[in-house]
Amino acid sequence: MPKKIDRRKFLKTTALVGTATAMLPRSVVGELVSDQHVRLGFIGTGLRGQWMLQLAAQRSDVDIAAICDIDDHMISLALDVVKRQGNPPPDVYDNGEEDFLNMVQRDDLDAVYIATPWEWHHPMAIAAMKQGKHVGTEVPAALTVEDIWDLVNTSERTERQCMIMENVCYRRDVMAVLNMVRQGLFGELLHLQCGYQHDLRHVKFNDGEQAYGGGVEFGEKGYSESKWRTQHSIERNGDLYPTHGVGPVSTMLDINRGNRFVHLTSTATQSRGLHKYIVDQGGPEHPNTSVEFKLGDIVTTVIKCANGQSVMVSHDTNSPRPYSLNFRVQGTKGLWMVDNDSVYLQGRSPEEHRWESFEPYRTDYDHPLWKRFTGAENTIGHTGHGGIDFFILNAFVESLKRNVSPPIDIYDAASMSVISPLSERSISMGSAPIKFPDFTRGKWRMNKPIFGTNSEY
Amino acid sequence: MPKKIDRRKFLKTTALVGTATAMLPRSVVGELVSDQHVRLGFIGTGLRGQWMLQLAAQRSDVDIAAICDIDDHMISLALDVVKRQGNPPPDVYDNGEEDFLNMVQRDDLDAVYIATPWEWHHPMAIAAMKQGKHVGTEVPAALTVEDIWDLVNTSERTERQCMIMENVCYRRDVMAVLNMVRQGLFGELLHLQCGYQHDLRHVKFNDGEQAYGGGVEFGEKGYSESKWRTQHSIERNGDLYPTHGVGPVSTMLDINRGNRFVHLTSTATQSRGLHKYIVDQGGPEHPNTSVEFKLGDIVTTVIKCANGQSVMVSHDTNSPRPYSLNFRVQGTKGLWMVDNDSVYLQGRSPEEHRWESFEPYRTDYDHPLWKRFTGAENTIGHTGHGGIDFFILNAFVESLKRNVSPPIDIYDAASMSVISPLSERSISMGSAPIKFPDFTRGKWRMNKPIFGTNSEY
Repeated sequence: MPKKIDRRKFLKTTALVGTATAMLPRSVVGELVSDQHVRLGFIGTGLRGQWMLQLAAQRSDVDIAAICDIDDHMISLALDVVKRQGNPPPDVYDNGEEDFLNMVQRDDLDAVYIATPWEWHHPMAIAAMKQGKHVGTEVPAALTVEDIWDLVNTSERTERQCMIMENVCYRRDVMAVLNMVRQGLFGELLHLQCGYQHDLRHVKFNDGEQAYGGGVEFGEKGYSESKWRTQHSIERNGDLYPTHGVGPVSTMLDINRGNRFVHLTSTATQSRGLHKYIVDQGGPEHPNTSVEFKLGDIVTTVIKCANGQSVMVSHDTNSPRPYSLNFRVQGTKGLWMVDNDSVYLQGRSPEEHRWESFEPYRTDYDHPLWKRFTGAENTIGHTGHGGIDFFILNAFVESLKRNVSPPIDIYDAASMSVISPLSERSISMGSAPIKFPDFTRGKWRMNKPIFGTNSEY
Repeated sequence: MPKKIDRRKFLKTTALVGTATAMLPRSVVGELVSDQHVRLGFIGTGLRGQWMLQLAAQRSDVDIAAICDIDDHMISLALDVVKRQGNPPPDVYDNGEEDFLNMVQRDDLDAVYIATPWEWHHPMAIAAMKQGKHVGTEVPAALTVEDIWDLVNTSERTERQCMIMENVCYRRDVMAVLNMVRQGLFGELLHLQCGYQHDLRHVKFNDGEQAYGGGVEFGEKGYSESKWRTQHSIERNGDLYPTHGVGPVSTMLDINRGNRFVHLTSTATQSRGLHKYIVDQGGPEHPNTSVEFKLGDIVTTVIKCANGQSVMVSHDTNSPRPYSLNFRVQGTKGLWMVDNDSVYLQGRSPEEHRWESFEPYRTDYDHPLWKRFTGAENTIGHTGHGGIDFFILNAFVESLKRNVSPPIDIYDAASMSVISPLSERSISMGSAPIKFPDFTRGKWRMNKPIFGTNSEY
């Protein structure tokens, strides 16, 4: 494989870059070595892991050295994915739940990509960083305040990056709006809305043979996400999945970089949807009708920011509804709303106090990153999620190659992920306001924005 | 005037009806006496008062016996309004701020309509009820928890009605959705949204000669609402105007009738819009640039209900934006959203997880009240606010004629109006949850819905 030729050279180069940048601020861009390869190990080769593995295998600057999973079937599917892209077979770690510990000890890995059930992200990221590996983890980074601090502390101590792979930050409309925010079209930001409004009932339940629907089984009898994700709806009441909304909002509000989340309140509705789904689909006699779900069907969280803004975050996954991330970005000069695909900007929109279509803005404020990668190279033509998975992986790989902080870093991982445990605590205390820890330890005041500030990654 | 002929008969009849129904529950409909007249006094004849006066003067079942205001110019405009409709001139009370106390002592008034600045609603309503008059008051009914309790206690003790004139309850789309809620189309309700999103900058400031805009004056130098309303933005930080959103939501959620608001949290953004408007319109040297506004530009309130539901209420009056009351009604089977004018109902909407236009539902679920009054009689053809002012006045008058509780009663006035002081308290305590008083003293458990339950009023 031609792309393996430079491994020795790469090892030497990264070692040098590593030394050179050790004394530099993390956000300073190091020297780009264009023929570098990044050597990745993948923990978690379920459906999501396989998809990201495929994107990685398509890149000439990535070597897939090892994969790890507890499920032999998923491992074999993952090996097929790698093979189909013409890559040599990675080493396999499938010897039980702790085998990832062996994988992260390999000395030929630069970084580890984690696409396992939520509760495994933290121990796997910690283990990888302790073995000197950078980390990219699917959302959320961890589930408790303590574990999130553990990630921050370990990342700082080991000087390893821990990037949260929040792909919605790269959505094309979202990046155009970020562009508009930075160019001042909305004036000073006041209020933002976002959320995860996605009917997941057919994800939380299936027939044990297919990933989506067809039955009301979960846990041991389920397949794919229903095996583990549904249990969170039984045990927890809070915003279980805030990052798809809060990621983009964080970039627009300069969270951790001149601004920060200060406190939140959360309020949950009654829990009806999941039980109703079991009764409707499985019949009133199905044993799962006796399962009690703690998760309120809709959880509404309101966050207050240090610079004054508020953010309303919805979590809405148990009810029939069209998909929407509920975005709204409002400032002193106007606002954008995703649900009516419209914008209003005082003095610019043609009619006073009337919405206009967002369509022309989508084009006029297209972010340089999107322009570049949908241009001549057309790199992202074949990637899913509107290309956002290409971008998030690209950001991970390019940051590793440059030995710089990724554009969504450990502090973002922390401030996004901590919303879940804080919202659970707020709800358990009757919507009491809960303070955000300052994971940057005051550095948010001086830090500068790093997301979407260049056209490379 | 022919409509005055029956006054003596009416006096006798109402006295009888009053006796007969004194021992009946307030919600029981008394005998309809179709030729009854209702004798009204109007306190507050500013622009809003004049408009409602005109609607009242158009009715053959209303006598306008007296009007009261401190502003001679407004009084003369009001007299013109009455005269134009062919009515005899009412007696005038214009002898200063306390002259309303003389007006409510007249023994030829059945009820008083209050359309004065917010802070006067409470003392005027109390004075009227103590003099045996029923009350219709513009929103909000009162500004503090103590004053709201005073209204409830006085209404109960004097057995006088105190209706809050929340006209948005009668909006045609809102009543169609209420119809859909009651017919079970949304399943069990989970989460509702509403709010007052209305750029009021040209209402809060004007040139002292016209009601809307043209300058950045307010208070003594202002005209119409800017004379008094703007001061609330200086002194208070909270949801100052919740009822237009919360009224319709309350009817759908059976608030005070099987359900109630339990607690709320409120979060305010920084305050920018009003100062910016003064600078932009009046220049950086205008003396009003030194005014400090306490009101956050956007206030987000989340209410928790006894039956589990949540309600998100927005208050957004200082920024450029299209008008919207932000309605969303979501249950276990689907949802309606006003901003995209769409609905999704599982198993009924043609495409799974796709919005469909609300348009056919607007027709199919048109409320009987709207059907009746837009039918052959076409009574509301000339009324404003989409006819909603006709309906709210009609409800007031018809309830008086029947000597029954109005469909939006003192307990609704209380639970809607109290959101303002509770939200102010929550914001001042860092978004702490604040409990709603139970103004019904437990009767909410047994009370039955009364709004929109007939096709008369």
